[in-house]
Amino acid sequence: MTVLVVGSVALDSVETPFGKADLVIGGSGTFFSASASHLSPVQLVGVVGDDYPMEQLEPLRARGVDMAGLEQMSGNSFRWRGRYRHDLNSAETLETHLGVFSHFSPKIPEQFRRAPFVFLANIDPRLQLDVLRQVERPKLVACDTMNFWIESRRPELLALIEQVDLITLNDGEARQLTDCFNLVKAARWIMERGPSMVIIKKGEHGAFLFKERSIFFAPAYPLENVFDPTGAGDSFAGGFMGYLARTGDLSDDNLRRAVIYGSAMGSFAVEKFSVQRLLEIDRSNIAARVADFRRLVAFEEEVLA
Amino acid sequence: MTVLVVGSVALDSVETPFGKADLVIGGSGTFFSASASHLSPVQLVGVVGDDYPMEQLEPLRARGVDMAGLEQMSGNSFRWRGRYRHDLNSAETLETHLGVFSHFSPKIPEQFRRAPFVFLANIDPRLQLDVLRQVERPKLVACDTMNFWIESRRPELLALIEQVDLITLNDGEARQLTDCFNLVKAARWIMERGPSMVIIKKGEHGAFLFKERSIFFAPAYPLENVFDPTGAGDSFAGGFMGYLARTGDLSDDNLRRAVIYGSAMGSFAVEKFSVQRLLEIDRSNIAARVADFRRLVAFEEEVLA
Repeated sequence: MTVLVVGSVALDSVETPFGKADLVIGGSGTFFSASASHLSPVQLVGVVGDDYPMEQLEPLRARGVDMAGLEQMSGNSFRWRGRYRHDLNSAETLETHLGVFSHFSPKIPEQFRRAPFVFLANIDPRLQLDVLRQVERPKLVACDTMNFWIESRRPELLALIEQVDLITLNDGEARQLTDCFNLVKAARWIMERGPSMVIIKKGEHGAFLFKERSIFFAPAYPLENVFDPTGAGDSFAGGFMGYLARTGDLSDDNLRRAVIYGSAMGSFAVEKFSVQRLLEIDRSNIAARVADFRRLVAFEEEVLA
Repeated sequence: MTVLVVGSVALDSVETPFGKADLVIGGSGTFFSASASHLSPVQLVGVVGDDYPMEQLEPLRARGVDMAGLEQMSGNSFRWRGRYRHDLNSAETLETHLGVFSHFSPKIPEQFRRAPFVFLANIDPRLQLDVLRQVERPKLVACDTMNFWIESRRPELLALIEQVDLITLNDGEARQLTDCFNLVKAARWIMERGPSMVIIKKGEHGAFLFKERSIFFAPAYPLENVFDPTGAGDSFAGGFMGYLARTGDLSDDNLRRAVIYGSAMGSFAVEKFSVQRLLEIDRSNIAARVADFRRLVAFEEEVLA
């Protein structure tokens, strides 16, 4: 099955303790697509300016990302410049230029409107709501968000939340949205307002999938070299949604596996700048990483004598 | 089999966002014993002053903690006063009075010297080394430490590390000791200097067990109400060592289970002040929590079609 993603397609300039990258392709839609397309067909909706290096998106197209919904407008693409310090856990934003993204009004092409899996990446909740008005009863709708929208578009975000099946957010955002410090309580607060599932991402500390009656936890893969954390969350979402779209199975067992695929894809994303590592890997790398996750947490219970 | 622990037996005064406790029993030796004694016989070596409410240790004795090595000296017991803020992740120490603990020189009773499992809780590395001179070839020696010793007794700590099989420390301490920010690298740095195993505790973010060829990760249990984090690390160590002593099995499979028992006991410890919750629970509570841990991380791999 296909997954539709609506998100940013940007140019990133990133500085980490290990190096610098200038004007490389990035954005939530890009990372999501690079990740999900390993597992299922992807339909991408976004906007770029006339400065965008379209040829760098070719490897995504070749891998099954349908770009019929990627508008090109005259003007500059969304540009983000950020820096990570030694702990790599939080980016310091140095510059943001919205460019053509400030006029973004997602138009879902006719042939995308019946996508069974929909991911509303981190954009203005008003636009996320607008996308939902254009699609036809997806099997699963998930959204992401960020501190900026929680603060400036709270009513719209709450209206959106009512209409999605799943929301992904990081621990700080979950606390900000719900005013609950405890993440179990925060997840319950959110589930009372719509979604039947909440994924709380804790960066290098892993991710929780909360459902009404169960909690699943996946650690982050303990990499020796985290090179650039940019896009890890969107790559996680891509692996998660891509696996669900591939299998079409929303059972608890399969959702757990999807979280592991998400974690695996997130762990690849941070190994190089931009989507570089996501473009290099193949099915066997992914299978090996998933097996590594299994070994990382596997234990057998034994009844105490 | 029996586990010998050498550590502090203290009086704690703790303030959390949820309440206050004054002069309750605490200390690394106390928490360790309250935890490990659910699983194996414990021999406790420590020192208290003549102000110590010895009757409050009776439940431990009744559960199989041999206190032949617990000296009582004239003077005050070790007293610690601390406060936790809302995030509960780090204690702010308000007062420390060493009292008789400042003269502590562990004397291991004759009948304790052949204990197969030895835990050197967080005390001066010179004393930890002194204990090792008094015991006879244990099957496994583990030690804990803290930032204060890493800074003030580095040579002695490194000498100790050469002689232990396993060290437990938290992520901040691992980074401080090794000057490696990455925990995989930090663990390798330590293993190159002696221990074949390193446990890095990340508080609410779980714990890693590093061995030469494998990494195991156990999440912290996602409790809705963490009441008082004091003693969580020592209760973890007690569950870990107690399970190993109970089973006498140092296979990789069993070490993983021991980490889960440690995590389970740590999760009980934080549910109430002092060792209160550890004294209430029984074997069936522990088994249920271990089963919860299994559900928390369980997933089945499936080969991608």
